[in-house]
Amino acid sequence: MIPVSEALDNLLSLISTTEIEEVPLVQAAGRVLARDLKARRTQPPFSASAMDGYAVNKAEVERHAMFKVIGESAAGHGFQGRVGAGQAVRIFTGAPVPEGASFVVIQEDVSRSGDLITITDPPGDNDNIRPAGGDFIAGEVVTAPRVLGSADIALLASMNIATVPVRKRPDIALISTGDELVMPGDTPGPDQIIASNTFGLKALLDDLGAKARILPIARDTIPALTAAFDLAKGADLIVTIGGASVGDHDLVAPVAAKMGMEQSFYKVAMRPGKPLMAGRMGASAMVGLPGNPVSAMVCGHVFLAPMVRIMLGLSHKPAVQQARLAAPLSANGPRMHYMRARFEDGQITAFERQDSSLLSVLAQANALLIRPPNDHARDSDESVDFIQL
Amino acid sequence: MIPVSEALDNLLSLISTTEIEEVPLVQAAGRVLARDLKARRTQPPFSASAMDGYAVNKAEVERHAMFKVIGESAAGHGFQGRVGAGQAVRIFTGAPVPEGASFVVIQEDVSRSGDLITITDPPGDNDNIRPAGGDFIAGEVVTAPRVLGSADIALLASMNIATVPVRKRPDIALISTGDELVMPGDTPGPDQIIASNTFGLKALLDDLGAKARILPIARDTIPALTAAFDLAKGADLIVTIGGASVGDHDLVAPVAAKMGMEQSFYKVAMRPGKPLMAGRMGASAMVGLPGNPVSAMVCGHVFLAPMVRIMLGLSHKPAVQQARLAAPLSANGPRMHYMRARFEDGQITAFERQDSSLLSVLAQANALLIRPPNDHARDSDESVDFIQL
Repeated sequence: MIPVSEALDNLLSLISTTEIEEVPLVQAAGRVLARDLKARRTQPPFSASAMDGYAVNKAEVERHAMFKVIGESAAGHGFQGRVGAGQAVRIFTGAPVPEGASFVVIQEDVSRSGDLITITDPPGDNDNIRPAGGDFIAGEVVTAPRVLGSADIALLASMNIATVPVRKRPDIALISTGDELVMPGDTPGPDQIIASNTFGLKALLDDLGAKARILPIARDTIPALTAAFDLAKGADLIVTIGGASVGDHDLVAPVAAKMGMEQSFYKVAMRPGKPLMAGRMGASAMVGLPGNPVSAMVCGHVFLAPMVRIMLGLSHKPAVQQARLAAPLSANGPRMHYMRARFEDGQITAFERQDSSLLSVLAQANALLIRPPNDHARDSDESVDFIQL
Repeated sequence: MIPVSEALDNLLSLISTTEIEEVPLVQAAGRVLARDLKARRTQPPFSASAMDGYAVNKAEVERHAMFKVIGESAAGHGFQGRVGAGQAVRIFTGAPVPEGASFVVIQEDVSRSGDLITITDPPGDNDNIRPAGGDFIAGEVVTAPRVLGSADIALLASMNIATVPVRKRPDIALISTGDELVMPGDTPGPDQIIASNTFGLKALLDDLGAKARILPIARDTIPALTAAFDLAKGADLIVTIGGASVGDHDLVAPVAAKMGMEQSFYKVAMRPGKPLMAGRMGASAMVGLPGNPVSAMVCGHVFLAPMVRIMLGLSHKPAVQQARLAAPLSANGPRMHYMRARFEDGQITAFERQDSSLLSVLAQANALLIRPPNDHARDSDESVDFIQL
């Protein structure tokens, strides 16, 4: 048995970052920026008023001072002339501050009569001007890689960046195997169950930024598995679920080998989980997951999620957090245990039922509580590691 | 000035939950379940083996006991007969446990010679059988509302639910207004800047589950704004950005009024933020946001996000968290202040520059530190509220 970290290193060595593609800014949200980007302009591009008011020369600003209004500067339509002594320009938020002006008196501090204004209230020290380049200057860099959030998108827009280089979504082919499986909506025979792993894994992987596709269920025959692998060709990653153990009906390994896979096989010291199959098949990486629904989903979180992150050019580190135990835990065995758990108000509670077939328990969980191999018994209130689901 | 909570209550009274639509399971991830769903079957539908091994009668299980193998039960292909005294059935993980059997001896504890097996190792107490209905029984309920995560999708699949009733994504029309704006990729004039708010807000709202559409920029004229509102018709929510104040060029309010809007106007005690315009316009709710980029985005988090959640049938409560201050903060003024901040390792630090025009600062922030009105000065290490961005 090898530790989880060694299995993960092996899996990560099978993959590389995806290509870069240019997408319109409006489609870039949630994607991973692939190259540093430079601002194509300075923001604000001119000194801009932060308020509605009157632009004047700062040296002349004092209570009871009077000015003649000689024009207007509105957003998008600046005042073209110069503000001289005793002069003011009506100005609005976001409008360019005209030449000669160095202070905006807010309209609430002024009384106006025709073309004349008088400062009626103490105007304070703030000049109410946003200096040119106060937000960023042309050439300023947004560094890659980063997952583009809503504020990044707004920032790139204001830098006048209309298309964005992002990592292509990894193409992941999902193959569930087994004569016992039918698709949701079908009528299962008495010995059959519904395929659920591919649906759960697709939701998980798509949410991480991949583009997973569910292939038809492969029956437990050599031709069926061969056909499934043929359909998967071109994928960055092929994931099979079930049939990858060493039982008499486990055909994934021999068929994959016949199709040219250089196969690695790991006994990973983890629960839930089973021997993991992995290798390269032509241009694709290939991973064989156990068929138990919860095992498959936990392996998705522990192994496939880091693979997707690396393919997207991100770091693979999962965000391990700490929480206090709400109840004691007995000692752990020799395998890393990812316990389905509930994290609430800073406390974490492992579910009592940890069998790897129980999707109803996984669906209630919002965390995987991580028990290291041979971890001794833990009291309530001790701190443990977990990853959020 | 009214408090943020009162403004929010007013805004929430303008909207209602969207209609329900049925989507294929594979498209339901991330959507909000709109109606309780009942499992269409029991899982496992039969007592199933948890291991590869031999199914026998539990009463006969002891070390050195011998059995005759009379058949096989594989996943998808159960054994049709009955297991009698001294008999065993070869069985694989997930396969139905045949009638008469009540224990699965794992293959590692058995030696086989032809049709005969002998138990060579102490088989332990665990019967290695997953009882029928151990995960869920037909009719068991998945309760709405809930955002469907990957484990929910896997669970619904295994319940044989092929289509899912979800809330329609709210249709949100985004209109930015102002002669100073051009679209990303355009060449701005000397007094112009790039429209960024609609792009940032679309990313934010789409991520929350809405379907936002960016309408053409509305110039500061009555016909341009009228045309924009016409394009927005049918939206669940119309959001304008800029032009909603009381300046000479702020035409949003009068044009909206002319188009039948029953208008409310709030001075909200918050920073960043400005008077907020809101009302109903035909079948749509309408909100007018301030034009400063950071004000618009913060109002998006504080006001629009809860509106989307309510439209999706969820609770509107933002997830307020607590963290310790990394540095002291001076006293706050009379308005709720949403400070752009960085939350790391349990500590939170407000950025020095809090001007509402600075998108570069917002893009570095991962939290909004919430200062209540008139909050006194705070020392480092004091606990404060924040929402994660």
